[in-house]
Amino acid sequence: MATKLSGFPEFLPRERIVEQQVLDHLRRTFELHGFANIETRAVEPLDVLLRKGEIDKEVYAVKRLAAADGEPAELALHYDLTVPFARYVLENAGKLEFPFRRWQIQKVWRGERPQQGRFREFTQADIDIVARDVLPFHFDVEVARVMAEALAGLPIPTATLQISNRKILEGFYLGLGIDEPAAVMQVVDKLDKVPAEKIRELLVEQGLDGGQADRVLALAEIVTTDTSFVERVQALGVEHEMLAEGLSELAQVIEGASGVEGVVVTADLRIARGLDYYTGTVFETRLAGWEHLGSICSGGRYDKLAQDRRSTYPGVGISLGVSRLLVPLGLAASRSVPSAVLVAVDSEDSRAESNAIAGRLRARGIPTEVAAKADKFGKQIQNAEKRGIPYVWFPPSAVKDIRTGDQVDADPDQWTPPAEDLTPNILNKEQNT
Amino acid sequence: MATKLSGFPEFLPRERIVEQQVLDHLRRTFELHGFANIETRAVEPLDVLLRKGEIDKEVYAVKRLAAADGEPAELALHYDLTVPFARYVLENAGKLEFPFRRWQIQKVWRGERPQQGRFREFTQADIDIVARDVLPFHFDVEVARVMAEALAGLPIPTATLQISNRKILEGFYLGLGIDEPAAVMQVVDKLDKVPAEKIRELLVEQGLDGGQADRVLALAEIVTTDTSFVERVQALGVEHEMLAEGLSELAQVIEGASGVEGVVVTADLRIARGLDYYTGTVFETRLAGWEHLGSICSGGRYDKLAQDRRSTYPGVGISLGVSRLLVPLGLAASRSVPSAVLVAVDSEDSRAESNAIAGRLRARGIPTEVAAKADKFGKQIQNAEKRGIPYVWFPPSAVKDIRTGDQVDADPDQWTPPAEDLTPNILNKEQNT
Repeated sequence: MATKLSGFPEFLPRERIVEQQVLDHLRRTFELHGFANIETRAVEPLDVLLRKGEIDKEVYAVKRLAAADGEPAELALHYDLTVPFARYVLENAGKLEFPFRRWQIQKVWRGERPQQGRFREFTQADIDIVARDVLPFHFDVEVARVMAEALAGLPIPTATLQISNRKILEGFYLGLGIDEPAAVMQVVDKLDKVPAEKIRELLVEQGLDGGQADRVLALAEIVTTDTSFVERVQALGVEHEMLAEGLSELAQVIEGASGVEGVVVTADLRIARGLDYYTGTVFETRLAGWEHLGSICSGGRYDKLAQDRRSTYPGVGISLGVSRLLVPLGLAASRSVPSAVLVAVDSEDSRAESNAIAGRLRARGIPTEVAAKADKFGKQIQNAEKRGIPYVWFPPSAVKDIRTGDQVDADPDQWTPPAEDLTPNILNKEQNT
Repeated sequence: MATKLSGFPEFLPRERIVEQQVLDHLRRTFELHGFANIETRAVEPLDVLLRKGEIDKEVYAVKRLAAADGEPAELALHYDLTVPFARYVLENAGKLEFPFRRWQIQKVWRGERPQQGRFREFTQADIDIVARDVLPFHFDVEVARVMAEALAGLPIPTATLQISNRKILEGFYLGLGIDEPAAVMQVVDKLDKVPAEKIRELLVEQGLDGGQADRVLALAEIVTTDTSFVERVQALGVEHEMLAEGLSELAQVIEGASGVEGVVVTADLRIARGLDYYTGTVFETRLAGWEHLGSICSGGRYDKLAQDRRSTYPGVGISLGVSRLLVPLGLAASRSVPSAVLVAVDSEDSRAESNAIAGRLRARGIPTEVAAKADKFGKQIQNAEKRGIPYVWFPPSAVKDIRTGDQVDADPDQWTPPAEDLTPNILNKEQNT
């Protein structure tokens, strides 16, 4: 029965506490910025997923076991949170207030081959802002800022938010006289996997002359942590209205998202994002020392997130791969339980007294458990230690910090542990950064 | 594309906020009692689910779309959180500390026919305590107490926790000279659907004589809010060792779980729980005025939650049907967004100033959004009103309670809304209770 399924990671309690704290921080950040939460059902009609996605073969079909044998599956597990969100927006358009800011943290499923940082079931944390018909550009800045603040508070190596704008690339290519900028973008998007020389060859194969190819590559080399990228692009001597618009937009996003301690924000003109539906700002994110995981947080502006007979719904959003981040980092908490205190039990006859003390501590917000058995106190302390619980209470009125051995007299209606002991702490951060 | 799927409820933002607050309260209660959180994968091997469950036809099979046509499904979505938890315990037995208290809130899936309070996708909140080999009885009391406290803080009609103990029923039946107590229990379990007369006939069909049948029914009529049920059972004049043990256990659970304001705790000897695996304490829960929903929170003691070659893992647990509760109640929050404040924007040129004020409010934990557009102030106030946001900030230093029209001068580093406005409130409680 105990079969581990490859690609379906599960955390031990000490690891899950880290994930809980990460999810709590994300939620707190998103809600401080006024993002509302939604959850969508795990399944979507199969035809909707296949129409939208580029990943037919990775979809998990879902069918009632009681369904007739030949009956085709009509449902499938969602493989991201964007397609379900678009469907939700259309379905509830009459009841939502636009622009609609939403955060959504749920599991998604993909039948791909499991490997490091790639799972068949994993958790994504998405924020998107969607409007009806028109979504002002300042929302691109907002989304970048919110995700920078979200990343800043996580127990992870330094994250670098790499931001670009498809208008810069497309405008630059058009300004260079290239007819099919989309095809060039797809080639340039491979720069992190394929050497520049090889990319140059591919560009020439596409019909670019040597000068064009060189300038395409020169553009892709520009990476700055401030708005100086604007001058560097202009120095390449290409002019186009769309390019100018893209430069202005990207400069605003970089300025707006910068200045969050602990996160690096870069204008990075290598970033193109393969997917067709992005139309302006694009985001990727890499972790210092963990670049092999790829982008852990990606997104951008799509002028047509959804569409019905009456309206178009433009959006801008970004999606953080929580499992992709946490599973490889392998973080653990200082304890395997929420309890800050274990109340000892002198004998089974006095368990009610221990329960009453625990109740008084809980009433003041202190997570507390009562010893499972009236063992010798040494054994009860050992049991607390194994769980990482820092304090043992001996009824009626003594509390011991079992890490230091310090014991003091205390009143269960008054005593409070130091704030840093109230909730579990995350260990191993030093080793991982 | 916008197809509602029957049996897969989704909340609007105002409704989801209620669910969030309910889940927050459950988590807070469970963690105050030292319960650790886990999540298990959504899928289990199909054969495990079919071996364990009594609901073959309701299982959703899951298969990669890329799998070969004739290939049978090997995975299925879990239909409860108990079977996955048992598998998790066995898989991680060497790494867990026993007794292991865990809470788990996840979606489960059942392909049953949708009707009021019955869904194909729904959220369950489970607590269980599991041990290796021996689980002392006081954990039955603990689980009842924790769930009583959890129910007490919810925005729902008064809940009545109905507790019984299979040992009372089995011991009573054995003491009466009945050979097959399990069969009688299954008949008695139908008392809430079938009239007592009809049950009496069924019992006689099973071979009971009239006197036995009368006493079986008399036992099932006993419902008390204190431990007086013990005397009432004894007055029926049946004696058996197992009966005495059951009465003592149930009396302890009733005493331990009572006294939580807002929740009624009863010893209710009608409750038998159909499922075979319960061996002692059994729980059900009904909501005043919503009895037609059936039990919204059920569970009990199972002496064999799981088993491997070396050990048996006894457990006691209880499972709250969050969706079954919330979807019919139809609660909504006072606003559709977390924001307590909307910062107005005078003109697009001064948006940065409004952003800065919002940042200062957020730094002190006040959820804040900035107006989407530099409309006339009247329109910006209207937009806040539609979302239920109580305060509008006019840069640099005026804040208006838009419900009363009161406006005051304020410093974004000092001003704080009253605590009751910081987070959304739940409406409609009066109508629903």
